[in-house]
Amino acid sequence: MADRSDFVQSLERGLAVIRAFDRSHPELSLSEVAAATGVTRAAARRFLLTLAELGYVRSDGRFFSLSPRVLELGYAYLSSLSLPEVAEPHLEQLATEVNESSSVSVLDGYDVVYVARVPTSRIMTVSISVGTRFPAYATSMGRVLLAALPDEELEAYLKDIRLDRLTSRTIGSPAALRTELQRVRAQGWALVDQELEEGLRAVAAPIRDRAGRVVAAVNLSSHAGRTTLEAIRRDLVPPLLATAARISADLPATTRNRRR
Amino acid sequence: MADRSDFVQSLERGLAVIRAFDRSHPELSLSEVAAATGVTRAAARRFLLTLAELGYVRSDGRFFSLSPRVLELGYAYLSSLSLPEVAEPHLEQLATEVNESSSVSVLDGYDVVYVARVPTSRIMTVSISVGTRFPAYATSMGRVLLAALPDEELEAYLKDIRLDRLTSRTIGSPAALRTELQRVRAQGWALVDQELEEGLRAVAAPIRDRAGRVVAAVNLSSHAGRTTLEAIRRDLVPPLLATAARISADLPATTRNRRR
Repeated sequence: MADRSDFVQSLERGLAVIRAFDRSHPELSLSEVAAATGVTRAAARRFLLTLAELGYVRSDGRFFSLSPRVLELGYAYLSSLSLPEVAEPHLEQLATEVNESSSVSVLDGYDVVYVARVPTSRIMTVSISVGTRFPAYATSMGRVLLAALPDEELEAYLKDIRLDRLTSRTIGSPAALRTELQRVRAQGWALVDQELEEGLRAVAAPIRDRAGRVVAAVNLSSHAGRTTLEAIRRDLVPPLLATAARISADLPATTRNRRR
Repeated sequence: MADRSDFVQSLERGLAVIRAFDRSHPELSLSEVAAATGVTRAAARRFLLTLAELGYVRSDGRFFSLSPRVLELGYAYLSSLSLPEVAEPHLEQLATEVNESSSVSVLDGYDVVYVARVPTSRIMTVSISVGTRFPAYATSMGRVLLAALPDEELEAYLKDIRLDRLTSRTIGSPAALRTELQRVRAQGWALVDQELEEGLRAVAAPIRDRAGRVVAAVNLSSHAGRTTLEAIRRDLVPPLLATAARISADLPATTRNRRR
């Protein structure tokens, strides 16, 4: 944790200005940016003009919006990660083989975040792209990643987590989630049946680094009306596990000796 | 342009710290960040500790790397844009219909930037994902977007642009590019044959907003060994134009009356 004297508040606030824009707010006035980020109009103006000069924000004089240059920032993360590039050809092969969408995600706090995706036909009502987040407990990739946490981290998570009933099937208690995660650990993959969205079934397997640590998860998702649970176990799990093993084998050794 | 007194330098520098990480530099030491961004070690330390406290950077004590939270920033742009969500189901349908990869991009300065993509089998040696940039002049989507520029903007671009010979076929002069862009304007789509990468052929069409302005381009890309130019014109252009029209029709009216 940074000492308060080390904390650069104008960086925090400038990033908050970027995050103030979203689907519901693609264009914001100066006053709206000030209100959304809790700064004065004068401060909001300085942040917006700075972001405009750097090419991250556009303005028609009255309203501001983000420019495509903002993608550079997220892209800095993706390109610093060898995982998406390594995974994508394998996802393409898998998606073609079984004709279902396949994705890779990593854990960020309590969420899974998509870092690679090969869609086939649209089966979810929400759009998924690289950067999409879902609560880890309700997704197959999240369960694979949670199951790989050290015991003390998992217990802290289970103590702290609030389980929202996203569908009538969403897991309801930390105790039930703990039992399910133990099963995932033992069997090496996770199957989630319509707990994130009605009609959506997904199965996920872990991707491991050279040291055997789980660093990501790969999934296949299918529509409940198209694939029975038995068909998922029989037809999707074996190629999924093979793909997870291929991606793991292709991951480069980390570039440095990490201490963690 | 912001008055210098309005420019928040620590925001500029903090964003430069994020961009210092890339494929070749996924992990950086404090000294390396300082060198890459041209700030003192003390300043680099404050930016890194601030980004770590905000969850954008991780550290093992010695080396720093970006965390998945950085995707939130690029995602702020994508989710503020209705285009990717509107386009994706149409890209999926098109990619399935013709069995070629399909993408949507926008113009940012002299580059096209991918904002949506449905890959089929891998045909390029480089990995393409949302956020990937290519020089506009060498790509079919770039030519569609350049052809839609107002004359004065296009002439300024042609005067300023440096055309790199990316392959032996890359267009060689601003005059030849101007002629080609006039052809693209007249025919309503652009075909580029192995000018970005050997073996890659792509065709693109414009996506228009309610007012008829070109706001993005959609493409299909194919391998030269698999598809002749004649087959592209006969088999790919008609469904591509139909897809561009469907995406254009589905775009929402802008949420505000923009002055531009």
